[in-house]
Amino acid sequence: MKIKYNLLKTDKNCKARLGTIETNYGTVETPMFMPVGTRATVKSLSPEEVKDCGSGIILANTYHLWLRPGEDIVNKCGGLHKFMNWNGPILTDSGGFQVFSLAKNKKDITEEGVHFKSHIDGTKLLLTPEKSIEIQNKLDSDIAMSFDECPPASADYKYLKNSIERTLRWAERGKKVHNNPNQALFGIVQGGPHEDLRRFSAEETVKLDFDGYSIGGVANDGESKEDMYKAIDYSIPYLPDDKVRYLMGVGDPIDILEGVERGVDIFDCVLPTRIARHGQAFTRTGKIHMKNAKYIDDLSPVEEGCDCYCCKNYSKAYVRHLLSVDETFGGRLLSIHNIRFLIKLTEEIREAIKEDRFLDYKKEFINKYNSK
Amino acid sequence: MKIKYNLLKTDKNCKARLGTIETNYGTVETPMFMPVGTRATVKSLSPEEVKDCGSGIILANTYHLWLRPGEDIVNKCGGLHKFMNWNGPILTDSGGFQVFSLAKNKKDITEEGVHFKSHIDGTKLLLTPEKSIEIQNKLDSDIAMSFDECPPASADYKYLKNSIERTLRWAERGKKVHNNPNQALFGIVQGGPHEDLRRFSAEETVKLDFDGYSIGGVANDGESKEDMYKAIDYSIPYLPDDKVRYLMGVGDPIDILEGVERGVDIFDCVLPTRIARHGQAFTRTGKIHMKNAKYIDDLSPVEEGCDCYCCKNYSKAYVRHLLSVDETFGGRLLSIHNIRFLIKLTEEIREAIKEDRFLDYKKEFINKYNSK
Repeated sequence: MKIKYNLLKTDKNCKARLGTIETNYGTVETPMFMPVGTRATVKSLSPEEVKDCGSGIILANTYHLWLRPGEDIVNKCGGLHKFMNWNGPILTDSGGFQVFSLAKNKKDITEEGVHFKSHIDGTKLLLTPEKSIEIQNKLDSDIAMSFDECPPASADYKYLKNSIERTLRWAERGKKVHNNPNQALFGIVQGGPHEDLRRFSAEETVKLDFDGYSIGGVANDGESKEDMYKAIDYSIPYLPDDKVRYLMGVGDPIDILEGVERGVDIFDCVLPTRIARHGQAFTRTGKIHMKNAKYIDDLSPVEEGCDCYCCKNYSKAYVRHLLSVDETFGGRLLSIHNIRFLIKLTEEIREAIKEDRFLDYKKEFINKYNSK
Repeated sequence: MKIKYNLLKTDKNCKARLGTIETNYGTVETPMFMPVGTRATVKSLSPEEVKDCGSGIILANTYHLWLRPGEDIVNKCGGLHKFMNWNGPILTDSGGFQVFSLAKNKKDITEEGVHFKSHIDGTKLLLTPEKSIEIQNKLDSDIAMSFDECPPASADYKYLKNSIERTLRWAERGKKVHNNPNQALFGIVQGGPHEDLRRFSAEETVKLDFDGYSIGGVANDGESKEDMYKAIDYSIPYLPDDKVRYLMGVGDPIDILEGVERGVDIFDCVLPTRIARHGQAFTRTGKIHMKNAKYIDDLSPVEEGCDCYCCKNYSKAYVRHLLSVDETFGGRLLSIHNIRFLIKLTEEIREAIKEDRFLDYKKEFINKYNSK
């Protein structure tokens, strides 16, 4: 079967939604955060560790898996779930974000698809909407993304207008070749911070009838928080209530709260694992730099009261030591902590929506998060 | 309490010994292999993973922990066990091996100790027998090593003779300042491949009455296998039966078998984790290179029949993929496999000694290991 989204309730005081997604690999609750497993592994973690963080769905990257080991290899190994030993649901992106950042000039972006050079060996490659879907069909993820154009934050109105029209044609082409009966396919709304473009993109994408909808173009370099919130605000009203909504590439705690308030159900981001490798930890009172000298003999956990494996078993002093001497176990421990932090945030968000107190919860969280 | 070694039996056909070591952190069986946790972490693994490999004791490095985070920090954190969350026994080396490799010329090696520059920032440092023991006392390992001179494999007879005499004086100085009632202290036998020097070193070290004895100078660069076996053969007869014997720095499967046959109880080596990071796996038919292109779509585990976490859950294709794209989870999986391989080897060795068939077991293992 494909996924089934169930809207359980909406908070009385805002658009925050509580729901579930039924998949072939179990039912997950929304709002939720998806850890990113770019190359069929959430960096430095085992599937069991990711699951122990409370994760529902994880994300894997089509572009990276297409290049190595190749979708046919993954398919021969029984699909992504079996390949990486993850028995929960998986979402794959379209590869669009990566190839657009690799395309060197405008003429590389054609109606057919995007021409670019492999980041590994410089081989000239072409990714088309059909190819993206074909790869995702073979990877056998539970949710596939349509291939969309990811315009830079600097793109002007005229460029964006043409771009969303092409993205619609690409969405239709992708939908036509999609042929995995166990895989849902999402459409993607673009349009920058422009109300009319977002509305047009959302309405036309919904007409194509996808299994869920993503809001794209919000995690590029350089766009402001305000533009991100506008992009959500201008897209959501035109998306159907009975389909799940996914804000792509967003994982900052405050952005998650802002997204949920506006009606978003799913988030993903490399942030928790990336900052972990650089020694940063999320805490309720903001991010802290674990390499800081003041932690050298600090016997307390990274965050007092946190229920993650790192905080239950190790001191700041030990984590700081591991990071200082470049031992990978340090980044691994912080990755667990940071993922658990975001998952726990979504657990609390769900509790709050259940009790119609999401806005209070959000306010309280943000006050504390910005308090230091 | 300090450790207590119990000799359970000796194989009827050779010197292979079956025994146990009682420690404050549980009883472990010998012959055994100790994984190396240089900087208070077995590279890339959690303590639970190391334990799941069947490990008894792990080794940590005095030199590295002295420099970072410093023995006082570890002590303040409750000692090594608590610091790194390892509730099994820990052995620390003396730091000798590292500082001798950092000492640039002969005049750096004095009666007082060894002058050298820190590998981190070039700071001039001096490690003495007293300092080594003081650091180990504070690290609070279960077994400490005496500070010995580690002469290069090229050292001549005259040099070695003077060296073992100084090592004896150093052993005595270290023993005098040792003051951790929960920590055993081992003496180290040196003497290169020379029968009379090994005998002298062993007899004189035993006179100082240590809690166990190590055979050193066998894992340097350049010495031959033959010299290693000689070093063992010439040392063992002069070591008491009721004390445990540790061959330092040796972890090649065949060397372990050769050592056990000659009466060695404990081995340690960075080999299983180091070769794992480079993509090599131990198997019963010899080492294999997991990055080899032929494994790209190989659905079988790294080793058929292996009971480790890696082999029970992942294919060669997946492990190869992780290694090919430099994902640390690949080295982690192979580290688990390689450590489990050596631990399993020692488990089988113990079973064989129990049934007086160690020599048959050894022959069979080596024939198979060298068969490809």
